[in-house]
Amino acid sequence: MRAVAAPRVVIVGGGFGGLYAARALRRAPAAVTLADRSNHHLFQPLLYQVATAALSPANIAVALRRVLRRQRNVSVVMAEAVAVDLRRKRVELQGGALDYDYLVLATGATHSYFGHDDWAAHAPGLKTLDDALEIRRRMLLSYEAAERETDPDRREALLTFVVVGGGPTGVELAGALAEIARHVLLRDFRRIDPAAARVVLVEAGPRLLPAFPADLSQAALERLQRMGVQVRLGIAVTGIDGRGVALGAERIESRCVLWAAGVQASPLARSLGVPLDRAGRVPVEPDLSVPGAPEVFAIGDLAAMKMPDGRPVPGVAPAAIQSGRHAARNIRRLLRGEKTEPFRYLDKGSLATIGRAAAVAQIGRLHLSGFIAWVLWLVVHILTLIGFRNRFIVLIEWAVVYLRYERGARLITGGAQPRLSDRC
Amino acid sequence: MRAVAAPRVVIVGGGFGGLYAARALRRAPAAVTLADRSNHHLFQPLLYQVATAALSPANIAVALRRVLRRQRNVSVVMAEAVAVDLRRKRVELQGGALDYDYLVLATGATHSYFGHDDWAAHAPGLKTLDDALEIRRRMLLSYEAAERETDPDRREALLTFVVVGGGPTGVELAGALAEIARHVLLRDFRRIDPAAARVVLVEAGPRLLPAFPADLSQAALERLQRMGVQVRLGIAVTGIDGRGVALGAERIESRCVLWAAGVQASPLARSLGVPLDRAGRVPVEPDLSVPGAPEVFAIGDLAAMKMPDGRPVPGVAPAAIQSGRHAARNIRRLLRGEKTEPFRYLDKGSLATIGRAAAVAQIGRLHLSGFIAWVLWLVVHILTLIGFRNRFIVLIEWAVVYLRYERGARLITGGAQPRLSDRC
Repeated sequence: MRAVAAPRVVIVGGGFGGLYAARALRRAPAAVTLADRSNHHLFQPLLYQVATAALSPANIAVALRRVLRRQRNVSVVMAEAVAVDLRRKRVELQGGALDYDYLVLATGATHSYFGHDDWAAHAPGLKTLDDALEIRRRMLLSYEAAERETDPDRREALLTFVVVGGGPTGVELAGALAEIARHVLLRDFRRIDPAAARVVLVEAGPRLLPAFPADLSQAALERLQRMGVQVRLGIAVTGIDGRGVALGAERIESRCVLWAAGVQASPLARSLGVPLDRAGRVPVEPDLSVPGAPEVFAIGDLAAMKMPDGRPVPGVAPAAIQSGRHAARNIRRLLRGEKTEPFRYLDKGSLATIGRAAAVAQIGRLHLSGFIAWVLWLVVHILTLIGFRNRFIVLIEWAVVYLRYERGARLITGGAQPRLSDRC
Repeated sequence: MRAVAAPRVVIVGGGFGGLYAARALRRAPAAVTLADRSNHHLFQPLLYQVATAALSPANIAVALRRVLRRQRNVSVVMAEAVAVDLRRKRVELQGGALDYDYLVLATGATHSYFGHDDWAAHAPGLKTLDDALEIRRRMLLSYEAAERETDPDRREALLTFVVVGGGPTGVELAGALAEIARHVLLRDFRRIDPAAARVVLVEAGPRLLPAFPADLSQAALERLQRMGVQVRLGIAVTGIDGRGVALGAERIESRCVLWAAGVQASPLARSLGVPLDRAGRVPVEPDLSVPGAPEVFAIGDLAAMKMPDGRPVPGVAPAAIQSGRHAARNIRRLLRGEKTEPFRYLDKGSLATIGRAAAVAQIGRLHLSGFIAWVLWLVVHILTLIGFRNRFIVLIEWAVVYLRYERGARLITGGAQPRLSDRC
């Protein structure tokens, strides 16, 4: 008698959804393969802290192999998935392929420039470690170029930072940029005054943090304004080039524009051949399976998931984690010959940080802002960071940032030559 | 009566020599400008720890502005110097120039491929943070590619690491690579056995660590061999391409070759128009001034400095620091109308680390190896790291590396696409 080969489960994507799906298959009688184009799991909620020089990449990222080393039924493959062939049950990789019996698609979302792909070169978004290092590089080079610049207009443009998009990432970036200008760099330059730097946050909608209750949006707005951020609500960006941003007839000259406005699902969804929603997401069945392919699940930001009352599940880390675990549990049910069960999203609340000792939080009917919300934000993010070591060192780094207004990762890497001329 | 403008002192280079020169001018009645092409001071002795994923860039580098923020007579300019015009007393920068009354040249050294510049693409050296991140990237990608590779010969080549050069950097890199293979990655892969990886250290001379006493060279050799490193002495590399290394008639197939063999002085020296030595260094006067230009000093790895008995001063960090301070003191003497004094190098000994709890040390007639030398290495490097915060966090990172065989910075950044085909 020969042993029957274990069923093959392929997971594409090692973010929150994919990683928690792999972990939830720990005791499943299956051969699990996790494929990701990078070698690490990234704690994305803290990515803006790398972009603003408070934390190092290694503080918020950990090698996927390391996280999963003890789980012997998982192997990790570093490779980019380019297409899914539902009929042949195969994932095409760059330079290879993976056959599956069950598939979890967890490739998340990427930036959307709303059809203006030429804006990408001038306004980087924030999704990967490389994105964060590029933003850090541009931000620091702006100050260096301003210190050398003799023309006042060009100097002003170099000291103007524009963040497009008033969601959590935009609010966090704008708050951190204002802190860096007003406190961190205060005495470091001789010719420019970093405190004179201008941080502009542009949001097309009527308020910041649209997913939060209105009173918390207002609290965030007031706090940012007190920190010196110029918040522009109800104004859409109509153009971005190497020299600034157009808001209709108005123009803001800036050499450092950051994009936090729109996301769209990973392009892998398009290869499925099923109809997608406007954001490119897969409208999944209640059990998170792809329509017409009951052995394939789409989770996290790649999926358009619905709550029982029809409202969409938000694109946040807890939703990715919960849907990843749910897909894994449904695969285990299928392996046992049982029926799958529908996904129920448990809303634990929302958190967004604004700056030093300031955040907003909504937990059910409880609305918090200010210092208490910030402590909550701190505790939640420390506890959910993967790896004891990361947690401990991040706590120390934060303590230094908090106590001494110090940002230890003020390093320009990625190209030895400063491009000091006109672009930051 | 108008105030007389303070004399202008320009320092080119923010490494050990330049930074300590700037600090030693703290109380000098001068307007000091420090120019560097990067924005940070780098603690180069620990750079191999970034290349081998033990430390993060921010652990061993600090923004130059940050270090010098309190020293109000110094301004920092991030710019690359391209030439020195001794006659007009001017340093030409990319996109600018700096006029000086006194000049300190501290641009250090870069890799030398002994006329084989085509080797550079296949065998990166280790001088900057970007170098270290590139080496880390290649090393980690080799294992990832090997895990995917099905052809046994190609897999073996992907798991072969060659370090060229048996000085301190080569010994440190080879030791760290062996540790990573034998311990750190041990259970992380499913198809390959990282412990089967081959680390080869090639040295053209008859022994390792030629600047150390012979008994310590022997101790380092034995230790590396016990760690599984194949040490090849008395063999010169005759070719390097994208597939491996040629040693005369012999060939080692390898996708990851690291260069630690030769250095040459920074090309800025050539613009001085004075005769240079074989390594491109400026043969300075006893007071460290450039022949024919008593107001210009060359220090550290850029200068060919001599001890009173005629032996050359070694190219190590203490020599850079001491010569930087000495040049600054001579400038202060000149400012007071006094005569300059000759430089006397104080040899405090030599240290090189081999791996976990193993190092060699020579302090005068005292020769140490093993654990005691390693503790000494640890203490010296922690104490000389700039910035309390860096020291503290580096200690914690090292404790984790030591206690748990863990390397927390196992991140592949710098280009999202793995190049998995033939090159690591």
